[in-house]
Amino acid sequence: MTIEELGKQAFDASKDLLAIGSEQKNLLLKKIADAICENTSYIIAQNNLDLENGKKSGLSDSLLDRLMLNKERLKEICDAVINISRQEDPVGAVLEGQIRPNGLKIQKITVPLGVVGIIYEARPNVTVDAAALCLKSGNACILRGGKEAINSNMALVKIMREAIFDCGFNKDAICLVEDTSRESAMQLMKLNKYLSVLIPRGGAGLIKSVVENSSVPVIETGSGNCHVYIDKYANLDMAAEIVYNAKASRVSVCNAAETMIIHKSIAESFLPVVKKELDKKNVLIKGCEATREIIEAQAATEDDYYKEFSDYIIACIIVDDIDAAIKHIAKYSTGHSECIVTENYRSSKIFTSLVDSAAVYVNVSTRFTDGGEFGLGAEVGISTQKLHARGPMGIKALTSYKYIIEGTGQTR
Amino acid sequence: MTIEELGKQAFDASKDLLAIGSEQKNLLLKKIADAICENTSYIIAQNNLDLENGKKSGLSDSLLDRLMLNKERLKEICDAVINISRQEDPVGAVLEGQIRPNGLKIQKITVPLGVVGIIYEARPNVTVDAAALCLKSGNACILRGGKEAINSNMALVKIMREAIFDCGFNKDAICLVEDTSRESAMQLMKLNKYLSVLIPRGGAGLIKSVVENSSVPVIETGSGNCHVYIDKYANLDMAAEIVYNAKASRVSVCNAAETMIIHKSIAESFLPVVKKELDKKNVLIKGCEATREIIEAQAATEDDYYKEFSDYIIACIIVDDIDAAIKHIAKYSTGHSECIVTENYRSSKIFTSLVDSAAVYVNVSTRFTDGGEFGLGAEVGISTQKLHARGPMGIKALTSYKYIIEGTGQTR
Repeated sequence: MTIEELGKQAFDASKDLLAIGSEQKNLLLKKIADAICENTSYIIAQNNLDLENGKKSGLSDSLLDRLMLNKERLKEICDAVINISRQEDPVGAVLEGQIRPNGLKIQKITVPLGVVGIIYEARPNVTVDAAALCLKSGNACILRGGKEAINSNMALVKIMREAIFDCGFNKDAICLVEDTSRESAMQLMKLNKYLSVLIPRGGAGLIKSVVENSSVPVIETGSGNCHVYIDKYANLDMAAEIVYNAKASRVSVCNAAETMIIHKSIAESFLPVVKKELDKKNVLIKGCEATREIIEAQAATEDDYYKEFSDYIIACIIVDDIDAAIKHIAKYSTGHSECIVTENYRSSKIFTSLVDSAAVYVNVSTRFTDGGEFGLGAEVGISTQKLHARGPMGIKALTSYKYIIEGTGQTR
Repeated sequence: MTIEELGKQAFDASKDLLAIGSEQKNLLLKKIADAICENTSYIIAQNNLDLENGKKSGLSDSLLDRLMLNKERLKEICDAVINISRQEDPVGAVLEGQIRPNGLKIQKITVPLGVVGIIYEARPNVTVDAAALCLKSGNACILRGGKEAINSNMALVKIMREAIFDCGFNKDAICLVEDTSRESAMQLMKLNKYLSVLIPRGGAGLIKSVVENSSVPVIETGSGNCHVYIDKYANLDMAAEIVYNAKASRVSVCNAAETMIIHKSIAESFLPVVKKELDKKNVLIKGCEATREIIEAQAATEDDYYKEFSDYIIACIIVDDIDAAIKHIAKYSTGHSECIVTENYRSSKIFTSLVDSAAVYVNVSTRFTDGGEFGLGAEVGISTQKLHARGPMGIKALTSYKYIIEGTGQTR
């Protein structure tokens, strides 16, 4: 089947989904979770094929680990589906409503996006997670995973499609691109006729490629070069704890801090304190010249300030004032999450007004930028673009809206 | 100056705009309107250069008319700016807020998009209109008009930039691409580093080219293949009036109807009635076979049902039931505006639930899909995509949001 034909199937299924109510969608999700639980041996056997192929082709241990499914992980996947089924239905909410002077009753109502395309890499859990998020929000989906996980993905999708069919609905609500060539991804990126949106989930290379090549609207997620600014009026102990947590609690995540920006008037007292904290996990500090006059640190290059280290490394720069801190962030940040540590009202207001990132914190670690922490339920991703959705995206990000206008024969 | 340098300038200006309040923005818009009024002779002289060049290069009379500025038109342009200044500021609204169990206070607040790119064609009024909409919503803009209007656009932008400078702000809030080559447009479409969004305003060819080539997020506007479905339970006189209004009140606009879909059980009584209405403006009917058995009509081709005629032509198809009508719309519509004419409750509910277009009407002409008619104030355009904004877009469509999170030292 061509990508175009697959798109048509998913598009038709998306229209059928418009007739399915909340209760039916939730039952369907439960049925999917059950079906996965009942078929663990089959799924694990198919997953083993992928693992064997992966070993032969020399995948790293960490990639093999991401790829691996066992009973426990399948249980987690099913639990996630059940949790999604328990969330509020994002479809059918009345966002606004009015009666116009000419009597038109206009309502703005949330609706599914239609067909959601997801391009992702080696984790087969994304296959189920993405499909469940789409079904819950009334969307059909076209999944295009990596070749490393193709047997696992085909098994999971087969089981989910059968569950949909058993419930009496159109199984094309979940479609898998079985051709994992670069061409199939490129074709998906040009499928404007049927796709409402394309969401890449994976590494920076994948996301960049989708953003650059897709004519289908994209939601860009992921990259985080986050900053902590320690103001002249900071509580220095709090600042050190926040820097340590933001940098070192988990270095591989996008909400980890990569640079601390320090007001010059407290640099001398603060740097030794924060260094002591960071030394606990042997975090390497890459500092500006002024930093290196106060503590031992590697010299930071201009390039370091642009980097998402994803490692036990933090850049450091000392600035003259809050304006310079905000300018530094405007220049180097990816617009994900930034924090000011301060006890001063005015500093907090300046920073939150002028820093233009998805999440701007006062006296809180940047690590909280997360759908769960924001109370959004299951997370679709963290958007670093400004259109449609920004920051942590809950299931609402998979909806659009339409206007329904009721009248009595009005003409214009 | 390269497009990259222009982008950097506008980007820096967008950061400066974050510090400007509502009152200052409104004063600035008034200053711009005044400056345009005070410089009408200069603008008209520059516009004359464009008109002369246009005549030499053989522009059609209707294009020359679109291009032409006179005192009256400049007055209208200034009035539009004043009206925009009087609208509510879309920036700074608290969309949601909560205090999390761990004490984090999270607020979701509207912010400007940043830098908005607008690619448009021959109408110089768009230059001022787009710039004013962007300023009001706190955005810097990069304008790239057509070569036909380059002298007019340069004059208008010069005056607006001087007005910004006189108010003490960064004049790069309004930037014009003076190079009107295809290359400059292509470069703008790849300027992800500085542009938050690109909005094409113009004909179908322009919009298609931007959608296909831009890696910057696009808001697609414009194309409207709208339908009126006359249900079995329609008031036939109302239906005929709505069809006539939707088709013939203004044929060049995107909210005009292109096809009427008629339930078979009322076709025989309805077609002669609606034909009599449509004959008033000599509207050509292109009908299916069943239609042509009842009234005189040209044979419709499959292709006709996909067309936005933008002319005194309407396609017609007779269907077995409401489901067939909805399927026809799903297949042929551009997702702009559709109407059902019915007195039946159930038909109205089925149609509004299952028709997936930006505006779905019950007993109202499709001609009402318009920012002004929806009470949105100045219209940015009518989006036919589902991401970010759908249907008539007011100035709110030029905003994003950010999360501001206040705490007391929380770490994770």
